[in-house]
Order: sequence, then C-alpha cells, then structure tokens
Amino acid sequence: MLPENSLAWGRSKSCIRELAAYGAARKQEIGPERVFDFSIGNPSVPAPDCVSEAMRELLCLSPAELHGYTPAPGLMSLREAVSADLKSRFGAEIPAELIYVCCGAAAGLASCLRGLLLPGEEVIAFAPFFPEYRVFTEGAGGVLVPVPPDGKLLPDFAAFERALTEKTKAVIVNTPNNPSGVVLPRESLQRLGDILRHAQRRFGHSIYLISDEPYRELLYEGAPLWVPDYYENTLVCYSFSKSLSLPGERIGYVAVSPKAHESGDVFSALAGAARACGYVNAPSFMQRVVEKCLGRTADISLYKASRDLLYGGLTELGFDCAYPGGAFYLFVRSLEPDAKAFSEKAKKHELLLVPSDDFGLGGYVRAAYCVPPEMIRRSLPAFRALAEDYGL
Amino acid sequence: MLPENSLAWGRSKSCIRELAAYGAARKQEIGPERVFDFSIGNPSVPAPDCVSEAMRELLCLSPAELHGYTPAPGLMSLREAVSADLKSRFGAEIPAELIYVCCGAAAGLASCLRGLLLPGEEVIAFAPFFPEYRVFTEGAGGVLVPVPPDGKLLPDFAAFERALTEKTKAVIVNTPNNPSGVVLPRESLQRLGDILRHAQRRFGHSIYLISDEPYRELLYEGAPLWVPDYYENTLVCYSFSKSLSLPGERIGYVAVSPKAHESGDVFSALAGAARACGYVNAPSFMQRVVEKCLGRTADISLYKASRDLLYGGLTELGFDCAYPGGAFYLFVRSLEPDAKAFSEKAKKHELLLVPSDDFGLGGYVRAAYCVPPEMIRRSLPAFRALAEDYGL
Repeated sequence: MLPENSLAWGRSKSCIRELAAYGAARKQEIGPERVFDFSIGNPSVPAPDCVSEAMRELLCLSPAELHGYTPAPGLMSLREAVSADLKSRFGAEIPAELIYVCCGAAAGLASCLRGLLLPGEEVIAFAPFFPEYRVFTEGAGGVLVPVPPDGKLLPDFAAFERALTEKTKAVIVNTPNNPSGVVLPRESLQRLGDILRHAQRRFGHSIYLISDEPYRELLYEGAPLWVPDYYENTLVCYSFSKSLSLPGERIGYVAVSPKAHESGDVFSALAGAARACGYVNAPSFMQRVVEKCLGRTADISLYKASRDLLYGGLTELGFDCAYPGGAFYLFVRSLEPDAKAFSEKAKKHELLLVPSDDFGLGGYVRAAYCVPPEMIRRSLPAFRALAEDYGL
Repeated sequence: MLPENSLAWGRSKSCIRELAAYGAARKQEIGPERVFDFSIGNPSVPAPDCVSEAMRELLCLSPAELHGYTPAPGLMSLREAVSADLKSRFGAEIPAELIYVCCGAAAGLASCLRGLLLPGEEVIAFAPFFPEYRVFTEGAGGVLVPVPPDGKLLPDFAAFERALTEKTKAVIVNTPNNPSGVVLPRESLQRLGDILRHAQRRFGHSIYLISDEPYRELLYEGAPLWVPDYYENTLVCYSFSKSLSLPGERIGYVAVSPKAHESGDVFSALAGAARACGYVNAPSFMQRVVEKCLGRTADISLYKASRDLLYGGLTELGFDCAYPGGAFYLFVRSLEPDAKAFSEKAKKHELLLVPSDDFGLGGYVRAAYCVPPEMIRRSLPAFRALAEDYGL
C-alpha cells in the first residue's frame, strides 16, 4: 500500500515530456532538420560568458570552501547581493534575511505552498498555468482552484472574485506567462491587488500572492514590474534557469516582502517546509556562480528575434495567437475545438505543438520558440500546410 | 494561520549548527588556533583532484548541454554507470531504471519516506540517529519510533522486535553511523533481515528497509557490506557528499532493490513524492562531474589517521568511546548524566562537543573529527583538563 498521490505523480507522464520524447525518436527516424520541435522550454540561447568565466575563476578557490555546506537559506553574501540588486532595479526593500536561496523556482513554489497551506486550503491559479502548480498544491495538502482567462488571455477578474472563498490562502500569478507568453499590464496587477485587499478584509485573514517569475528577465517591451509594489502580502519566486540559461542547475530564490503579514513567520515556515522535504542548501558552487553574474542575462535579443519571426509568420498565415510580450512561448488557438486532435494533425506536418489542456485551458497549443531561428523559418511552410488542412 | 510543523522546523535551530556558530564567534574572539571545534561534519579532506579535473574538462562542452534540464531521475549515462559500479563492487544487480539520482541523501531519504508512508504509519530508527530522520518522517505524515541501542551502541534487537507493529512501514539503518561512527557487523544485518522477514509474515504487509549510506566509503577496516544482500525490501540512499567531499553540491542517488516488493511502484512513488516537493532534477553539472569520478574518493586515509589519533588519545585519558570503524565521528560517554551540562563544561576548555540528546540518546557527546590533525593534537591537553574536572 503506497500513497496514491505520490504514485500517480510518479507514473503520469507530462504531455510536454512525452511530445519531446516523440520528437527525439522522430528526429532519429527522418533526420533532425525535418522535425519542427516546439515541445519543450529548454533555453536555446547559451549561458552568457560570465557564467563560464565565473566557473573558471571559482575553480581557484579551495575545494573545501567551494563545495562545503552553506547555510540552509544560502550564502549571506549572495542573499545580500540579491537584496541590493532588487533595491537598485526595483527600489525594493527586501532585507537579506527575507531572501531564501533555493533549488530553482519549482523548489521555491513548493516550499512556499507547504509553508503556507493548512489541509484543504485553496490556491487560485489563473489559466493557462504551468501544470506543476497543481502537483505542488496538492502535494502541500491544498486544493487548486483554476480561474479562466478573458478573451485576451488575461485574468477574468469577475471569475476571480467568484473564486475567492474563506478557504483561499494563496494566489499564484505568473508574468510573463508560461504557456502563453502574455505579460500582465500594470492595470491588471493593480486590479489584482485591489481585489485581494478587499477579500482579506471580507474574510478576515491573510491571502498571500505568490509571484512565479522565472521569465521576469525575458521581456521584449518595457521594463519588468515589481509585483510586491501592487500587493503587500507577496512572495516572489525567482529562478536563474531562463535568465542565465541554467535550467538544469536548479538555482533561484524566494523573496518575502517585509510588508507581508508575519513575514518572518512566513520565511520560517517556508524554510521549515523545505527542510522537511530534504532540501539542505541550494548547490554551493552555483550559488557562487550566480552571485558573480547577478544582473546579467543570456542574450535575450535572440529570443525576441525568434518571437517576431514566429508570431509574425503565424499571424500572417491567419493563425490567432496571443501577443507574447515575454517568455519564449507562443499560444496559438487550435483550428478545431479539440486541441489534442489539432496537435496530432500538426504532427503529420512534423510540427510538435503541446495541446493546452494540461495548462488548465482547452483550445490552444503551445509553441516553445527557444529553438534555432532557422528551424522557425523552415517550419513556416509546415504551418501553412496545417492551416490549409483546415481551409484557413 | 501557518502550518505549525513547518513553522517549528523552520524556527528550531539544530544544536549542531548552534554550536558551530558559537565556535565561529569564539574563534574571532580568542583566535582560531585556541578553539577546538568538533561540532560539525563538514568534510575537511578536500575533494579529490578528479573533481576539479572533471569540472575543467566539462567546461569545454556547450553550456546548453552542460546546464540544460536532465530527465527527472537523472542522466541515463550516470544511472547506468552507477548500476555498473554497484555490480562490480558488490555484485549487485540494480538496473539503471531503479536508480534515481537525487539532491543528496537528505532528498533521497525524504522522497523515499514520502513515497512509502501513508498517514500515521511508523518508521523505526535505531538510536543514536541523525536528527533529520524525525523531521523527514513527520514531514511525510509518519511517526518516528526510536529503538535504543545495546551497550556497544549496536541495535538492541529485543527492543527492535517490541517496536515493530502492524503500522511499521519502514526501518532506517545507517552504517557507518552518524553520530557514533559505529559500523554494523554482518551478523547484525543478518539478524535485522531475519527479524524483518518474520515481521512481514506476521503482519502480512511489506516493511521497507531504508539504508542511509553517506558514509559507506568512509570505512577504516574491511570492505563495506551491501545491505540489500541481507534483506530484499531495501532502498539504498547514497550521497557523494562525504566520499567526494561535495556536501554543498547536493548529489546522490536512491537505488531500489529489484527484489523489493513492487519495486517499480516504489520507484514511481518516490519519484512522484520528489516531484511534488519541487525537485526537478539533481544539479546537471554535478551529475556529469560525479559520473566522471565514480569509484574514486577523497583521501580517506587522512580521516583514519585522525580517528586513530583522537580515539587513541581519549581512551588513553580514560574516556569511554564507542569504537568508530567508519564515518568521522567519535561518540564519547559523558562524564555526568546530563550530556548538555557536560558539553557546557567542555566549552570552558574551548572544546566544542555536540550533546547526544538530539540524536535520540542521552549521555554522550559527538566529536566530529573531520578537522586538521594538528587541531586534534592540540586539543588533547584540553580533554585531559576536562577529565580532571571530573576526577577521571
């Protein structure tokens, strides 16, 4: 008798990973240049040179220093550097003591949810959303409550207000968004904050906003907004996975706003939750690497060029796409109601597009355009043929 | 309202870390050479050269390959190499598919417990034991049941048999042991296996043995035993933290014996539990480093020399010490019933020794001798003065 939820999470294949595995096999079969694999969000732009330079420099340190345990919340020098970086970029006043260095945004999110949720409490997520939000929430004993989007794939705030109950403990927001690439405008964050403040008064308890920000730096117009400016009870989960193209290294941080209710306790609870999951410290070598690379990013302009190429190409062909202001995903409306059937039809043209159902919303496919631009160019005739299948 | 257990785990300071922090402050105050800091188990022998060589070589790979996501259970090449290593060293037949590469033994243990336990099920640990066993067990919704040792600090098997109930789901064994350094002899493992097989028949359900093996390679006499040879239902949690002196990098593996009951399901459940905790993959760069260093270790002979120096020195002074056949800990009987008071008195001689209470057993102190040998030599007069305080 094993726990059913753990068994199910371990057995279920992510549709993204399945499509990527299909793609790998198909490339072997017919040649890699003939498969248009938009399945997975593995950064294609390499880590910036500062990463390998930092690694080479650090190799001169003594191994005991380099690879020893760090404090559980991370090296104080890194926490202070992150605090200073947030201050200089956003005017944010997050003391180093409220910055928890963790094994990527996934670890940060899971630890925040476990640190916040009592059994049966609810977490609201705006569809479309990253499928793991459900796993992390249910793993923490909570219930995920999806809220559908409006026609522009922004939160439907009327639906959001209806979804808030006295059991709501947290809300997850993700901008730029995976899977849609949509960026929340300032007005949406203001409205979100207003509604949450009102709900807190109405229900008489704190509701925490968890801002999942792995794509914060992948923004193609304007500057990123600082979510805690719009709502006090905010926890920011950041990752260096995409900004420094280090997704496999598992390094990021949680920043708890000092204005959050009981911020010190929230920090302790998320640290305690992480400890109980077996997190000891984020990888020590990489803590030192990202400290040396703070404020730097991989060459984001390459993603912007790909965005322009794919978004321009597909809208010209008549596809209906959400405008992707950031991240490296394009969300394309399916040409038939069943996105899975549409994704299957796309496969016939060697186009690998993830159906949107697992993101909490039917009727779309996700194209991850963190791929070589020449692949995008070569894929456009296949998209044209797909459109023609549907008489577009 | 935050979850009380997470808050408590986040707030409580480990007595080891507190003593280490006291030591750091004291060294600043009176000079590092005058403090005899045996508080913490941070490896003092540096990582072997193969580690920095592997790191330098790997830097020639493309960053996208080096730092990209790996499959959740680890790179298949590493899993296959671990499988081959276990086969060549122990004759063990663990297919790569049952090897889960994880973020150190702590992550492995926590994931195994979450993957195995239903709410309220019991986990038996043999005192003295690593304090985090309790946190991981309670975090997984289980109940930790300590079993006291016999006079030689080996498991008291009569007490063990009494502790087994129909709620027992798992037993944790740790050899060489932290905090005592004691190595379980073959006969103890045989007896353990016999008792567990009998209990399984008696209660009619599987009981899993979790073998926590971060110190497997730190053995000063004889060769390590392969625990699954003594009991079928075994999960081995291994870490490279001590063998390669990489404790901060968080890299290890779980090997599920293919003879374990429902081994495939056990593997899925632990993978699912890890996923729900936000584990994505073990750090990708370090996966490649340890693959290149499999079968190598830091220079263990340095720890053996320290073991001989400290064990010899203290027994000569009249202290009663468990014989430490492995790891880098010496467990010394307190000269008064209250180990905390004894540890405080030792502080007056600038000796930092961890009282044993948090290890589930009163009346001892732990000396971590992963320190420079000259510090051990300089500490002996302080131990002599401490003994004289008690008229030894």
